[in-house]
Amino acid sequence: MTGYGVTPLPGLPARVTICEVGPRDGLQNEAALLPVEVKAEFVERLVDAGHSVVETTSFVHPKWVPQLADAEQLLQRLTLADGVRYPVLVPNERGLDRALALGVRDIAVFASATETFARRNLNRTVDESLAMFAPVVERGRREDLRVRAYLSMCFGDPWEGEVPVAQVVGVAQRLMAMGCTELSLGDTIGVATPGRVTALLDTLTAAGIATADLAVHFHDTYGQALANTLAALQRGVTTVDASAGGLGGCPYAKSATGNLATEDLLWQLAGLGIETGVDLGRLVETSVWMAERLGRPSPSRTVTALAGTIKGENQ
Amino acid sequence: MTGYGVTPLPGLPARVTICEVGPRDGLQNEAALLPVEVKAEFVERLVDAGHSVVETTSFVHPKWVPQLADAEQLLQRLTLADGVRYPVLVPNERGLDRALALGVRDIAVFASATETFARRNLNRTVDESLAMFAPVVERGRREDLRVRAYLSMCFGDPWEGEVPVAQVVGVAQRLMAMGCTELSLGDTIGVATPGRVTALLDTLTAAGIATADLAVHFHDTYGQALANTLAALQRGVTTVDASAGGLGGCPYAKSATGNLATEDLLWQLAGLGIETGVDLGRLVETSVWMAERLGRPSPSRTVTALAGTIKGENQ
Repeated sequence: MTGYGVTPLPGLPARVTICEVGPRDGLQNEAALLPVEVKAEFVERLVDAGHSVVETTSFVHPKWVPQLADAEQLLQRLTLADGVRYPVLVPNERGLDRALALGVRDIAVFASATETFARRNLNRTVDESLAMFAPVVERGRREDLRVRAYLSMCFGDPWEGEVPVAQVVGVAQRLMAMGCTELSLGDTIGVATPGRVTALLDTLTAAGIATADLAVHFHDTYGQALANTLAALQRGVTTVDASAGGLGGCPYAKSATGNLATEDLLWQLAGLGIETGVDLGRLVETSVWMAERLGRPSPSRTVTALAGTIKGENQ
Repeated sequence: MTGYGVTPLPGLPARVTICEVGPRDGLQNEAALLPVEVKAEFVERLVDAGHSVVETTSFVHPKWVPQLADAEQLLQRLTLADGVRYPVLVPNERGLDRALALGVRDIAVFASATETFARRNLNRTVDESLAMFAPVVERGRREDLRVRAYLSMCFGDPWEGEVPVAQVVGVAQRLMAMGCTELSLGDTIGVATPGRVTALLDTLTAAGIATADLAVHFHDTYGQALANTLAALQRGVTTVDASAGGLGGCPYAKSATGNLATEDLLWQLAGLGIETGVDLGRLVETSVWMAERLGRPSPSRTVTALAGTIKGENQ
């Protein structure tokens, strides 16, 4: 796949599911407001590249996320492929109504491990936000939807500093007890290092949360995302969130770098012989295309290294 | 150190020596020709930040590396600190004469694991280049110098693709048999992934080369350097090469990103509780200062994230 061979590392999973968050988590944090047809093409290109999970949009109120105000139009425009999941972010029951009306089968809620971020991002305490999500999760499960829970600030918080593992595990357990089917552990400001990742995963599994229900969501703000991913794979995690071309990030982090780029992740997984089903070349092509739409180059190291090759192929 | 706590990962070394290669490997691959007083200040700032090994310059002919044509002037200008090593690159006996005349106590030779890169970089076959280094290493050892051997293209080569492990081990054994005291394994084009790192280290130690004599030298071209570093630490490697601010890179790689940034490495090591003696804040300050001299921002994620903070502290 990369032309430099495959050497497995003993003890890692044979297959990883990438949860591609570019169209939602990525575009939500970009300044540009893209036309709905560009977003639809983006989602379709990601599926064509082999992605089986593409987080598509958000039903958060457009006042808060104007970038995704066209959620309905986008979903109506898409031809959904068989065997592909298109989760959408749903903050409350009103959002769930809108999602269900459009035939959505995968939803996600967005919780915080810290009080400060809950207040800043959700304008609620942690307890209040969980109370808001509870009926969404319950009804979602009754409708047989998959319900992913994002848990942000699992490692560090810009206002609170280091976030205690026990605090993260406490919120995680409440989300799983509520009925969430997957928990995505977010390093929202990218400060985690591998020892902390391992310690959190070990504590969560000791608390009864199955590794199969866990995903990791690393940001590359300090360049740590892939080393942290390796630590998570070594603990058996098989779902990794990433954003095509490294789109987006956290608007509260000081740096311009954000989400782990899917291409950088793919380079690692391909070299390790871990199956993902995603084609690196087609994904780089998509990120080069998206960078042109956004008017700025991708921050992904792999996209930067391969973009010349891809352009050459298209000429 | 980073404000987000320390969580060790069992099995990693307690202390790592960073071989800071910014002034040589970094500046050699930058387009700018800096005045000798800026280079001297750079080396002194790196030592002040706590570095114990700073690769200072090169005695390669100025025709090939005009950036480091002032090697003599730089060494004469520096006040060498006690307990700090200042290795210099020495390609041949003529270079060794110049280095010894200036009181150099640490030298490095630069070999290639592949024939194509040996020819392109050294204008010699692998055999011819080893024959050129042999008298340098022998006389260096007689003079009781430390002699580091760089071995480039240990993982992939842009012309040859994947480089067989056995080929790398063969050249490595010849360098160690020659009397080199340290072997730095270079991923010159940044294509390695962690399984390959582990396999190479295991094969080298099985072939009788002590882990204590090995260093790793990763490039971040595809964003893999820190994950590869983690794999190397897990195999007991305690010397890691890095370049302040991510200066430099390989001129033959297609991408602008090159050496692993020392700051990104330090963020990882600090979070893991691994001692290095190097102060992250002072190093970021130095890289921000150097970026101003070079007229372009540092490619380091950590420098980018922290630069605002540092500037604020200086105002």
